[in-house]
Amino acid sequence: MKKAIVLVSGGMDSCVTASCAKKDGCQLSFLHINYGQRTERRELKSFNDIAIFFNVKEKLVVDMNYFNHIGGSCLTDLKIPVPKDNIDNHEIPVSYVPFRNANILSVATSWAEIIKAKIIYIGAVEEDSSGYPDCRRSFYDAFEKTIKEGTKPETSIKIMTPLINLYKKDIIKMGVELKSPLHLTWSCYENGNEPCLKCDSCILRSRGFKQADITDPILT
Amino acid sequence: MKKAIVLVSGGMDSCVTASCAKKDGCQLSFLHINYGQRTERRELKSFNDIAIFFNVKEKLVVDMNYFNHIGGSCLTDLKIPVPKDNIDNHEIPVSYVPFRNANILSVATSWAEIIKAKIIYIGAVEEDSSGYPDCRRSFYDAFEKTIKEGTKPETSIKIMTPLINLYKKDIIKMGVELKSPLHLTWSCYENGNEPCLKCDSCILRSRGFKQADITDPILT
Repeated sequence: MKKAIVLVSGGMDSCVTASCAKKDGCQLSFLHINYGQRTERRELKSFNDIAIFFNVKEKLVVDMNYFNHIGGSCLTDLKIPVPKDNIDNHEIPVSYVPFRNANILSVATSWAEIIKAKIIYIGAVEEDSSGYPDCRRSFYDAFEKTIKEGTKPETSIKIMTPLINLYKKDIIKMGVELKSPLHLTWSCYENGNEPCLKCDSCILRSRGFKQADITDPILT
Repeated sequence: MKKAIVLVSGGMDSCVTASCAKKDGCQLSFLHINYGQRTERRELKSFNDIAIFFNVKEKLVVDMNYFNHIGGSCLTDLKIPVPKDNIDNHEIPVSYVPFRNANILSVATSWAEIIKAKIIYIGAVEEDSSGYPDCRRSFYDAFEKTIKEGTKPETSIKIMTPLINLYKKDIIKMGVELKSPLHLTWSCYENGNEPCLKCDSCILRSRGFKQADITDPILT
């Protein structure tokens, strides 16, 4: 059974990605990153709930709160407000955390090299996403090459992005089909007890469920 | 004046690299990483001393102590002893911290994207080094491509490795020529008040000074 690290934020995409890794027959290790995001507390709860659901034995939670010092994103800098109803603006949004996914994949690779995981699964979405540059497959291809160049010769690690070309509605349908625990996930960018339903992430989620003609289990 | 981030560990190579960046006419911003290394306390002192020497206004110190949880290296796992007199063994040594430089460059890139630095200087040495895979220029070329793919279209960041092809003795000669503050640097892998003179890093340093026919200022 191949060991795989799944990057699990606590959101819907990474949850469905974990189901894909399980379907692929992998033994799952979960990695969660606190990068100083507003929703850290709530996301970590979802991460732990999802880990229990998948019966994951090997978990790592990493603090990257240096992103608060670096700033420049509404997710990590409390002085920058989270925009509302901004989803059809095609510029890179202010929620973009600079080069975040490279930081995350670097930790994942370091851990993978030690625990001998052969695959890293990440729930990045290029097609129907917020337009982040570090969510494109071309970025993951470049990163895979970097792994090859920067690790031991015997280390071989692939990056799997099973959702990269899917639309949100298809991710939700896939999640339902794979019996993914969508009821345990959290998407909202704000730090409330209930989703705000107005931020980019809430709007993408609710539009996806509507288009899939499925009721969001966290709203029932 | 172009802004450049210099990765400054507190060691000799990064100190000479800072001198190279200054010679290239850059405005220097210094980044130091605590990755849970044994010598963290001593290295941080050298970092701060070197920053004062170069009159650096913009500094960032980042904690990556997750490397202690990941382990697998004698630098970050206190259960693994630091080998002595091991320098001519051509295998990748146990001081290799898995994919460390990718983690470091990722933070540097995130910071560079926000403070609008155009260059990252890193004092990696391929030729006369400990044989770490993430110290080869091919790794930095791959990482540069990853930066291009994973950042905003208007972001343009180069990675400069001015020492990559030099032998230790030539780095020392260059440091002396550029009036680099070698007396402020720290190389030893152990966490003592004086260099142990037996670890890989001490041996590389003393061999370099001997070959350059220069007295190491930290030993006088």
